[in-house]
Amino acid sequence: MEPIEIVGYAAAVLTTISFVPQAAKIIKTKDTKSISLGMYALFSIGVLGWLIYGIVTRTLPVVLANGVTLCFASVILTYKIKYK
Amino acid sequence: MEPIEIVGYAAAVLTTISFVPQAAKIIKTKDTKSISLGMYALFSIGVLGWLIYGIVTRTLPVVLANGVTLCFASVILTYKIKYK
Repeated sequence: MEPIEIVGYAAAVLTTISFVPQAAKIIKTKDTKSISLGMYALFSIGVLGWLIYGIVTRTLPVVLANGVTLCFASVILTYKIKYK
Repeated sequence: MEPIEIVGYAAAVLTTISFVPQAAKIIKTKDTKSISLGMYALFSIGVLGWLIYGIVTRTLPVVLANGVTLCFASVILTYKIKYK
C-alpha cells in the first residue's frame, strides 16, 4: 500500500469514528441544546447521498465509511429531535 | 455528467455546508456545552488527512470539500476550547 493510501484510510477512520464521542455524550446527558438541528439534517442527507454513490459505483470503502457514519449521525439527529 | 456523479457532488456540497449552521449557532450563542470536544478534535485531524490526500493525489473536489470543511470544523473546535 502506498503511504498516501494509508493517510486516506486513516482519514476515513478518523472522520467516521469522530461521531462516536458526540453520540455517547448526548446519549449520556440527553443535552442537545448547543447541537445544530440544521447541521445534522443536512449532514445525514449528505452522508446518505455518499452511501448511494458508493453503492452505485461499487466503491466498498465509501459504502463502509458512510454506512457507519450515517448510523451515528442518525442517532445524534434523533436525540436532537427528541430532546430539544 | 452521469446522474450518479450529480448525487456525489450534491452529497459533497451537503456534508460540507452542513457545518455552517453549527458554526453560526455557537458563534451567536457561545454555548458549546453539548458539543463533544473529542468529536471535533478527531474530525478536524481526519479532514486534514483528507485534505493532504487530495493534494498529494491531485484530486480537486477532495481538496475543495475538505479545505472548506476544515475551516468550519476549526471554528467549532476553537469555540469549544475557548468557551467550555
